[in-house]
Amino acid sequence: MSNPFFKNHGPININEILKFLNLKSYDTIKDKKVSDIKDLNNAENNDITFFHTKKYKYLANQTKASFCITTHNLANELPKSCIPLVVENVLVSVSYLTAKFYPDSINDDYDTTAINISKSKYKDIVQYGENVLVGGNVKIGSNCLIGHNTIIEKNVVLGDHCSIGSNTIIRNSIIHNNVKILDNCVIGKHGFGFFPNNNKNLRYPHIGIVLINDNCEIGCGSTIDRGSISNTIIGKNTYLDNQIHVAHNVKIGENSIIAGQVGIAGSAIIGSNVRIGGQAGISGHVKIGNNVEIGGGSGVIKDIPDNTKVMGYPAKKIREFLRENKWFIRQQ
Amino acid sequence: MSNPFFKNHGPININEILKFLNLKSYDTIKDKKVSDIKDLNNAENNDITFFHTKKYKYLANQTKASFCITTHNLANELPKSCIPLVVENVLVSVSYLTAKFYPDSINDDYDTTAINISKSKYKDIVQYGENVLVGGNVKIGSNCLIGHNTIIEKNVVLGDHCSIGSNTIIRNSIIHNNVKILDNCVIGKHGFGFFPNNNKNLRYPHIGIVLINDNCEIGCGSTIDRGSISNTIIGKNTYLDNQIHVAHNVKIGENSIIAGQVGIAGSAIIGSNVRIGGQAGISGHVKIGNNVEIGGGSGVIKDIPDNTKVMGYPAKKIREFLRENKWFIRQQ
Amino acid sequence: MSNPFFKNHGPININEILKFLNLKSYDTIKDKKVSDIKDLNNAENNDITFFHTKKYKYLANQTKASFCITTHNLANELPKSCIPLVVENVLVSVSYLTAKFYPDSINDDYDTTAINISKSKYKDIVQYGENVLVGGNVKIGSNCLIGHNTIIEKNVVLGDHCSIGSNTIIRNSIIHNNVKILDNCVIGKHGFGFFPNNNKNLRYPHIGIVLINDNCEIGCGSTIDRGSISNTIIGKNTYLDNQIHVAHNVKIGENSIIAGQVGIAGSAIIGSNVRIGGQAGISGHVKIGNNVEIGGGSGVIKDIPDNTKVMGYPAKKIREFLRENKWFIRQQ
Repeated sequence: MSNPFFKNHGPININEILKFLNLKSYDTIKDKKVSDIKDLNNAENNDITFFHTKKYKYLANQTKASFCITTHNLANELPKSCIPLVVENVLVSVSYLTAKFYPDSINDDYDTTAINISKSKYKDIVQYGENVLVGGNVKIGSNCLIGHNTIIEKNVVLGDHCSIGSNTIIRNSIIHNNVKILDNCVIGKHGFGFFPNNNKNLRYPHIGIVLINDNCEIGCGSTIDRGSISNTIIGKNTYLDNQIHVAHNVKIGENSIIAGQVGIAGSAIIGSNVRIGGQAGISGHVKIGNNVEIGGGSGVIKDIPDNTKVMGYPAKKIREFLRENKWFIRQQ
Repeated sequence: MSNPFFKNHGPININEILKFLNLKSYDTIKDKKVSDIKDLNNAENNDITFFHTKKYKYLANQTKASFCITTHNLANELPKSCIPLVVENVLVSVSYLTAKFYPDSINDDYDTTAINISKSKYKDIVQYGENVLVGGNVKIGSNCLIGHNTIIEKNVVLGDHCSIGSNTIIRNSIIHNNVKILDNCVIGKHGFGFFPNNNKNLRYPHIGIVLINDNCEIGCGSTIDRGSISNTIIGKNTYLDNQIHVAHNVKIGENSIIAGQVGIAGSAIIGSNVRIGGQAGISGHVKIGNNVEIGGGSGVIKDIPDNTKVMGYPAKKIREFLRENKWFIRQQ
Repeated sequence: MSNPFFKNHGPININEILKFLNLKSYDTIKDKKVSDIKDLNNAENNDITFFHTKKYKYLANQTKASFCITTHNLANELPKSCIPLVVENVLVSVSYLTAKFYPDSINDDYDTTAINISKSKYKDIVQYGENVLVGGNVKIGSNCLIGHNTIIEKNVVLGDHCSIGSNTIIRNSIIHNNVKILDNCVIGKHGFGFFPNNNKNLRYPHIGIVLINDNCEIGCGSTIDRGSISNTIIGKNTYLDNQIHVAHNVKIGENSIIAGQVGIAGSAIIGSNVRIGGQAGISGHVKIGNNVEIGGGSGVIKDIPDNTKVMGYPAKKIREFLRENKWFIRQQ
């Protein structure tokens, strides 16, 4: 389910891929067709995947992919069914190859397919404000409200009983039922993923989507970026306050509560029943368990186990934070 | 003056309220009519109020309300004139009851009453840009400017000589004279107040408003939420920079200066002549005195007395912050 | 090149300036005409400049200006060719005088010159969305895209191959080639510069611009304020993530990468090849060298030399940060 919106231009013959990556052709694998590019976890037989850091060894060990772009050092972690393609820079190669499978996924210019909703097929089934635009490949459920100047750009599915505010922009997203997205949000733009390069950086394709589950609420001025290869996911009944930034590939569980101006960096995983205080920051790729409480202003730079309260920068167990600041707390 | 905009559906008979809260009826109080629901401070005779934390004991002692939703432990703090209604969860009961008095206050969907200003009675007395919308129950003073795509939603009073930028949304707010609100702001939406509940949270009604006094300036991309039961108030000649978030019920004094990306959590009280550096965060319910300076990036988690300079996370007196970081400051 | 957009109402006779600043007239300098007001660095012969803090002594020593607004203590740092005008509050005097040279620079109300692009001369050379507005004195290069509801206000130069998102507002800015500015940004508004004054603050004129060089990308919801007397500059191929705030007069070098929700206070100077993690804050007037890495959430309050990694609040060398948090890092 990782890319329902971007057209896969595959299959691509493995020899074409090898040429494209400047690799020697493999006698043993002539003419095999590669269906798709996916992450280690989601790749199937005939897919190509990638493996660039030991951190994901446990996923690499059991990938079902037929091919894997990786490094010399990591190649031997793959199962026999998966042929390693050893390159110099895994992510750059993946970036180029993703763009070959999904050429439409790099361009995030404004949606030229968008038209006034009053001229669309949704004019009678949606209650909408002034100057609302709807792009191509959009589905809208029953009893939805869409506020003034809002743009439902291409590649959006909106469930039933959703209420979208004004001046909001959504693209490449699946929004389930009873979701509220308030004013001035931007949902589903590409993430801040690219390869630094003097003079002109190389944009990383983002073929993931944003998936927002039932009963969520997203506050004013928030931004939620879509995933690069996997998706950005907000679990059921999770509430986000104003001015929150959720980066690409982040997963947030159910029934979580995230206060204003929190920032969650790319690929972080947040559990269910998590509470995050205002202005806290979560580093990229960290994993936060269930029932965790994170104090306002904290900076989380390491994984946090279930049922833990943390605070501080760097965030530590609340009793350590209090001990360190005992002098302060007694004084004031 | 706490709710000039939301229609009070009271008075409601106390027996109806008792039934609604699943409480036994009181022989002594049959058929008394309850006019309104207000906070401890503002409630009058015949009103109902609520008292949920010892912190507000001093207000409970002298409330004029006839009834008070509270807990078993707190009930004896009330004066004899005020009959306690003991419930399990004060705030949940208040939430339900507020929705009964003010059923319109929960829904913050886009304003369906808004029309193009060129078709409104304001077309000749306001200077306005393209695509400006005005909702019902709006009053606009003389010599105001309203920028492109801006929406003055329902329940707004705008004084004289105000300049509103473009792409800004205002509702449920009273804006006095000579106020500037720059681009992309959202003023007057409900706060981030609700009761967590697995599967579907319970939204807390917000019957307060945003009140912005003379000569204030609000920077681009800022959000100011309206109050829940009391109001959110910005004092005269206070300036806010860009991307600031002011949560519900916050009060800020006069002549204060708040730099970019500051976040002020719910019910915090900030004095006059206060200066807050960029990205500082103020916790909910803290009280900051007059003439206080708060360094950029600080996290304020305790009350701060008048005439104090603080910095750090948690914020402490500036001389303590400097002492702790002496090594650092000497080195660099 | 500091003010291509604001009309200079000079030259102004020095005696008029002296009267305006409540200074005695100078016998030695009758009737000299003053062309412009500029900073110490950019002022030429016949210009007036200002010098208010020892920090800029090295610039004051070699200014080419004919006059300099300054204090008694600093006056003797100026070269003989530059006549000091000693005032009580340098910046307030500069503010008044700047407004005299550039009366249009104080007003940042919405742009009344903006019209629908379909009625402008750009209708055939730009690809644009619905409800796009263009102000007076705008130049747009070839192959540009401008998204829905975006307003290119007055005084903007847009290079070739630029892609501007939707709901974005730009004014008083020069944008070079291949620049992407995503949705909901505000670029080129005046900075948060004013003189606090009880009852009614005094706005500082901003005659600088925003200059964004080739190949830059600016994320959704970001704000970049224009300079007061110098310009706000983003170097070539520098990428900004979402919800970033760049204050007035900031200069950022080339090939730098700035993650989400970072705030950079006024007049800070950031080098090239700098990486700044999410939510970091940079204090005003600090200087950050080239090839610097700043950890997410850091608060930078002092200059940072080239080739340094820093983290923490206050930000310190990464090895010191790690040493101080050793206990924490071992534990977790």
